[in-house]
Amino acid sequence: MTTVQEKALAISKEKHGKLEIRSKVEINSMADLSVAYTPGVAAVCTEIANNKEMVYEYTSKRNLVAVITDGSAVLGLGNIGPEAAIPVMEGKAILFKRFADVDAIPLSINTQDPDELVSHIAALAPSFGGINLEDISAPRCFEVEKRLKAMLDIPVFHDDQHGTAIVVLAALYNALKVAQKSIDSAKVVINGGGAAGLSIANMLLAAGVKNLKVVDKIGILCESDTSLPAHHMEMAKKTNREKQTGTLQDAVKGADVFVGVSAPGVLKKEWVATMADKSIVFAMANPMPEIMPDEAKAGGAYVVGTGRSDFPNQINNVLAFPGIFRGALDARAKDITLEMQLAAAKGLASIVTADKLSPDYILPNAFEPNVSKVVAESVRNAVKK
Amino acid sequence: MTTVQEKALAISKEKHGKLEIRSKVEINSMADLSVAYTPGVAAVCTEIANNKEMVYEYTSKRNLVAVITDGSAVLGLGNIGPEAAIPVMEGKAILFKRFADVDAIPLSINTQDPDELVSHIAALAPSFGGINLEDISAPRCFEVEKRLKAMLDIPVFHDDQHGTAIVVLAALYNALKVAQKSIDSAKVVINGGGAAGLSIANMLLAAGVKNLKVVDKIGILCESDTSLPAHHMEMAKKTNREKQTGTLQDAVKGADVFVGVSAPGVLKKEWVATMADKSIVFAMANPMPEIMPDEAKAGGAYVVGTGRSDFPNQINNVLAFPGIFRGALDARAKDITLEMQLAAAKGLASIVTADKLSPDYILPNAFEPNVSKVVAESVRNAVKK
Repeated sequence: MTTVQEKALAISKEKHGKLEIRSKVEINSMADLSVAYTPGVAAVCTEIANNKEMVYEYTSKRNLVAVITDGSAVLGLGNIGPEAAIPVMEGKAILFKRFADVDAIPLSINTQDPDELVSHIAALAPSFGGINLEDISAPRCFEVEKRLKAMLDIPVFHDDQHGTAIVVLAALYNALKVAQKSIDSAKVVINGGGAAGLSIANMLLAAGVKNLKVVDKIGILCESDTSLPAHHMEMAKKTNREKQTGTLQDAVKGADVFVGVSAPGVLKKEWVATMADKSIVFAMANPMPEIMPDEAKAGGAYVVGTGRSDFPNQINNVLAFPGIFRGALDARAKDITLEMQLAAAKGLASIVTADKLSPDYILPNAFEPNVSKVVAESVRNAVKK
Repeated sequence: MTTVQEKALAISKEKHGKLEIRSKVEINSMADLSVAYTPGVAAVCTEIANNKEMVYEYTSKRNLVAVITDGSAVLGLGNIGPEAAIPVMEGKAILFKRFADVDAIPLSINTQDPDELVSHIAALAPSFGGINLEDISAPRCFEVEKRLKAMLDIPVFHDDQHGTAIVVLAALYNALKVAQKSIDSAKVVINGGGAAGLSIANMLLAAGVKNLKVVDKIGILCESDTSLPAHHMEMAKKTNREKQTGTLQDAVKGADVFVGVSAPGVLKKEWVATMADKSIVFAMANPMPEIMPDEAKAGGAYVVGTGRSDFPNQINNVLAFPGIFRGALDARAKDITLEMQLAAAKGLASIVTADKLSPDYILPNAFEPNVSKVVAESVRNAVKK
């Protein structure tokens, strides 16, 4: 066990979890009690009963996000169930608070049936200003999110998909700038056909990438392969216009960009050497990337990013989700639309100014001031009025 | 609008709700982030995946209670829906924290169908150490609680029923002591056949009351009345051994104890005058009691309690629920059994020592030190090992 893991266990055991509920009002007398609870509270209830929108003025709803999982795809640990997923959800909740002053509560749901998940989560909507879905396995997560977005009038956002995609797009904007390449002519390969890979693909297409291939374990997704499952066929039809078949090794030949959300060590130095000049490699498998940064550089990569904090260019969801929800909550948005997500990526990329931009500095550090503020502002401005 | 109501509105609007989620760990560096979130958190998840009981050691579950409503019977306001109920749930949540250091989160569920309610609430169990049901209308609340108690291995407690019943029983223990009457010979009348009234009746029967009548709008519940709904027939069979029929006025003649959980002004001074010597009147309708204390005394009542803080002997749930959950959580009890509830009532009554006991002082004030501590200890000691 690593020191970090030992520390994590020790802190969780000492404190019994990472969060607590605190009152914002003092209760030190019967008079305080009458105001915070009965009979005073009846007046507040009545205001909301008369005009439901007032729930945003008079309750925690306006700043409260549920971080919801079914425990089916937790980190790299897989389907460990709702109880074992709680530490991740608590971690996420305290990051919401730390980086964007969003109150977030972890909720682990005891079912992995999509219909039940949708029904349970939808029923919780009255209390919350937004719902952050987390660590729900593909392809169920697509359906669950899609149905909830259609049903609810509060933002629903599956961070593993869209949070990752937004940070990747921000990283790509700045990497392309450094490498002096354009997004509409860049040849991009995504390795990994799970929730993150497919969501990144959709985001890059929406941002203007034209030459895109997605590679999964079976090889390059290609619409001529009729054995593809529905969500992969849908993606194959939107990408790989040349209908190339083959392996990852085949796909990366001549590519400008490699985006890995797959498994440790799957990208070889020799294959990087076959990529285009000034190639960009985002190797985000955790904790061991698809290729170590020094290897990728040795293969000729010009910009290298990973998911890790001990290398330059950490591509980390925490750069996006706090600001995205901050912006959506402040705007009282009913949804987090594609436009808002694209705006978040642009806003995030803009934090690294031209004078600081370099192959080893394409994204801000999570602790730089204003990260969530700038992202929130970009999101807020993109909300349709 | 009263001053208290104006204050309640002003505070809720200024602070946007009464609670917030706080982190118990500092996150000020990438190293902190690695411990609180990935990769460190994976070790915590793995411990729980290997042994589910560890969720109580490593997460907030052990101290986290969900305060759940469907908004169907909120205070005296009725069926105002899930959003308008939130201020009451928030109030309850901060009382949990204030009086027993229990972390509690309000959850308003968007359905009033009992099957759906049970299903949604049960699905939330992994995250919580206990569930406090609140302001769910009768008779649905009986079924919802019963089914959840059977399904779940965490305590489920409908406070409007059992919290009220526990405090009434504690008040009754001390009032009988003051009046030098015994519980097994006392003639008790409960007015109000809703959730609270029926639960008080069950609790008093369990505590040894033998002569008990429950009166609802139609009159004294009597098993010879075949038109009674199921939950009233069940109660009629357990009470009113004399099979008396008639009105509240008939029922209270010669009674030692009147317990009102009904409506303002329904008990007349002249009727109190027909009660037994040294009669006990608990008039708990809110905010206006069944009879004002001065009227009840004028009618001859010896001990008078109400739900209000501006009269002596406030019969207030806040005396019970924080300590009950504190005790149940500390014991990691799977249920809050009748034995635990009876123990809570005895513990609460014991706080008023014999030297202080008087007709105007049968219950402690919520702000007296040790109230929740004594209740918690009584509950903990009553948990079956």
